[in-house]
Amino acid sequence: MDEKTWHRRTQVPLVLASLVYLIAYSWRVIGGLEGVAHVLVTTVIVATWALFIVDYVVRLSLAKDRRVWFRTHLGTLAITLIPVFRLVLLLRVLTHVPGMRPSAGSRLRTQIMVYGAGAGVLLIYIASLAVLEAERSSPDANITSFPVAVWWSCVTITTTGYGDFFPVTWMGRAVGTGVMFSGIALSGIITATLASWIFERAARDHDDAEPATRGQMRQLLAKVEALSRPAAEGDAEGR
Amino acid sequence: MDEKTWHRRTQVPLVLASLVYLIAYSWRVIGGLEGVAHVLVTTVIVATWALFIVDYVVRLSLAKDRRVWFRTHLGTLAITLIPVFRLVLLLRVLTHVPGMRPSAGSRLRTQIMVYGAGAGVLLIYIASLAVLEAERSSPDANITSFPVAVWWSCVTITTTGYGDFFPVTWMGRAVGTGVMFSGIALSGIITATLASWIFERAARDHDDAEPATRGQMRQLLAKVEALSRPAAEGDAEGR
Amino acid sequence: MDEKTWHRRTQVPLVLASLVYLIAYSWRVIGGLEGVAHVLVTTVIVATWALFIVDYVVRLSLAKDRRVWFRTHLGTLAITLIPVFRLVLLLRVLTHVPGMRPSAGSRLRTQIMVYGAGAGVLLIYIASLAVLEAERSSPDANITSFPVAVWWSCVTITTTGYGDFFPVTWMGRAVGTGVMFSGIALSGIITATLASWIFERAARDHDDAEPATRGQMRQLLAKVEALSRPAAEGDAEGR
Amino acid sequence: MDEKTWHRRTQVPLVLASLVYLIAYSWRVIGGLEGVAHVLVTTVIVATWALFIVDYVVRLSLAKDRRVWFRTHLGTLAITLIPVFRLVLLLRVLTHVPGMRPSAGSRLRTQIMVYGAGAGVLLIYIASLAVLEAERSSPDANITSFPVAVWWSCVTITTTGYGDFFPVTWMGRAVGTGVMFSGIALSGIITATLASWIFERAARDHDDAEPATRGQMRQLLAKVEALSRPAAEGDAEGR
Repeated sequence: MDEKTWHRRTQVPLVLASLVYLIAYSWRVIGGLEGVAHVLVTTVIVATWALFIVDYVVRLSLAKDRRVWFRTHLGTLAITLIPVFRLVLLLRVLTHVPGMRPSAGSRLRTQIMVYGAGAGVLLIYIASLAVLEAERSSPDANITSFPVAVWWSCVTITTTGYGDFFPVTWMGRAVGTGVMFSGIALSGIITATLASWIFERAARDHDDAEPATRGQMRQLLAKVEALSRPAAEGDAEGR
Repeated sequence: MDEKTWHRRTQVPLVLASLVYLIAYSWRVIGGLEGVAHVLVTTVIVATWALFIVDYVVRLSLAKDRRVWFRTHLGTLAITLIPVFRLVLLLRVLTHVPGMRPSAGSRLRTQIMVYGAGAGVLLIYIASLAVLEAERSSPDANITSFPVAVWWSCVTITTTGYGDFFPVTWMGRAVGTGVMFSGIALSGIITATLASWIFERAARDHDDAEPATRGQMRQLLAKVEALSRPAAEGDAEGR
Repeated sequence: MDEKTWHRRTQVPLVLASLVYLIAYSWRVIGGLEGVAHVLVTTVIVATWALFIVDYVVRLSLAKDRRVWFRTHLGTLAITLIPVFRLVLLLRVLTHVPGMRPSAGSRLRTQIMVYGAGAGVLLIYIASLAVLEAERSSPDANITSFPVAVWWSCVTITTTGYGDFFPVTWMGRAVGTGVMFSGIALSGIITATLASWIFERAARDHDDAEPATRGQMRQLLAKVEALSRPAAEGDAEGR
Repeated sequence: MDEKTWHRRTQVPLVLASLVYLIAYSWRVIGGLEGVAHVLVTTVIVATWALFIVDYVVRLSLAKDRRVWFRTHLGTLAITLIPVFRLVLLLRVLTHVPGMRPSAGSRLRTQIMVYGAGAGVLLIYIASLAVLEAERSSPDANITSFPVAVWWSCVTITTTGYGDFFPVTWMGRAVGTGVMFSGIALSGIITATLASWIFERAARDHDDAEPATRGQMRQLLAKVEALSRPAAEGDAEGR
């Protein structure tokens, strides 16, 4: 079996595994599990994690040129090593739903907005889980419950930063840094999409001053073509 | 009567109702009403709210295909259920004033800027009312007067977030989250409109290097058309 | 004398007056003047202010249609009534320096950047003066010196908002709100100018895939014109 | 030897010198050196600084027209006088690596993103060093360790500004101001690059409605050229 076949066949199970991972992770953090329940849920998390690592190793070994594959799949490596990143996979799946494939025009803008909103919500959710798990262990922490963690994520992703809540552990600060930069990227996506929409609206209604279309050009080329053919025939007949 | 006729006839009364709603809501929150006055004003608020719900139900029942109408009017549902969102209707009305209809070119940019500024001011006003009503009930609140609430809204919508004032109730934080994300959208609109303006300015003055216009193209197509007709006639005569 | 002649002749003196205003205002605030010095400097400030009001009244009385002039010069009114806005005049003057007139292409971008940077620096300076004068009178103020006011302005115009310093008076908060929104506009200008630059760079180097130019079009139109004229003459001679 | 030859030959040594400068500076700040070690490392820093000043003076004296060179190389002067700015040179070098030269299309976007990310990381690193060195001397400082300084830089460059840490010395605040404005520029670059990408994607797939290309135009011009030549020959023969 080659690498592409393997990847195609394992996509659906891996998406389900990442959903299981997300649910187990959410349960452990929000539920504040202890004792047997904690051990059980952690086992599920580790098991799904192991699945992704196995998938990565198999894909690497199946690849024709392992060095090339490794270099061109650094993103896959990141997704495999840091469990939190893996959940972005769930959104990548969205683009496989019919009617959600990347395409042109105003449909593209709708898709970018839907994807951006989805990524934003997922990011706020995951960041809230991650920061809560990191901060809970610290005695100086001020982010001590899940709703507070969600509020902190919203304040951070919009780069508002009141300072009523902030991470004090290094793990929590690493999560915070990721959230801030994601926030800048997300606001960039919103601005860029709005710009694309405004430009298209501004271009409408003065069609005569618009750039000539390639369609018009093909029409013209065909006409000139037709014009030069009979002329050449006429020339031939005239001799 | 069909749904469109109903919608056209009820638009003006509903705009007036939403104005009444806004005034009554403002009065209740800013005036800090108590006793009979509070009951009276609340009755007006509930009555106008009921009007919108009745309008929604009537429109749904008048629709040809109720499932399709429901799916394509989720925004109307949101506006009906959450009273605060309804006031955006007031701005939607602006686009019906003659000379304010969405159109092309630099007029579009002026309209977007006017609409954006209007939406921004309305949002700051409504958010200040909503956060004040939410926070007033809490003993730990630091947003305790309307001017402070307006200052907090401005600090939040620009995503500055000093942290001198911030919501402590969950309702207030929900309002805050909405204000932050609206702020990002508004700054995106400003940037995108400025970009459109700069692009158009940058394009002026080097007309020769500009994309050929569709007008030029139509001129050329007509000329080639005229060129090929007499040539064909000449051919016919020459034979 | 008509309004335009008056406006042309008074521009240079008014620019000098606004410079005197800025220097006197700066001196009063930063110097923390008292006694005779305070009275003297305040007299200069009021005198220059009076000059602008006189200029406004004269221009209004000289205008052909005073209603139209009033409606089309609301900006002039704002600049006349609120002294702080008047200093933007100094930057408007910049566009009259040779080589700084608004023009097209990459020169436009340089001008926007220079104007934006100038407006930003002037805004930070004026806002620092205004916030300091407003806050100095309050016993709860934390912005109590000019350097601190400048630091606060920088933190505010970038919408960072640490919260180590913030205005506590209503006048100071009004200044702060202006600075925040200016900051959003300035960052919008930076982004839009960068976008214009990136788009132009991205368009270079694949000239063949670029939109056909109006210059090429005029060339083609002339060629087709020339093509159709001798053909018509040939037809005429052939008969 | 002329100025250009000198500049070409000294580029590689100066890049190495700036690397040595960065390492020595990092060591002094992070290591918190004292005694002999401090003197030694400071000597290295001063020596590399001297190298850049010597380079500047030599280039100025070698220039054909020193006044013109001075006016057109103000950036070089800034880089020479403020050691921290010099390290941006390291990134300028990146553009000399084969395949990283500024070029058109989506490769340009990748380069801008790589350069932006590089500049961002370098800026956070240098700002953390600079703010730590500035703040360490103050008894009121809250930024007292390198990891805290990095966290502060991230919070500042994204303009989040929690206010859990902030500079209290004037040198530290100057660094902070630089970081904030850089953050706005960086987020502008991200937004502009995303906009360029979205515009290109939005343009794909409706090729017929796209502006006619210059390639199509050249094709057409050649065809009309060919059309007019035989016609002229035909005319000549016909006489």
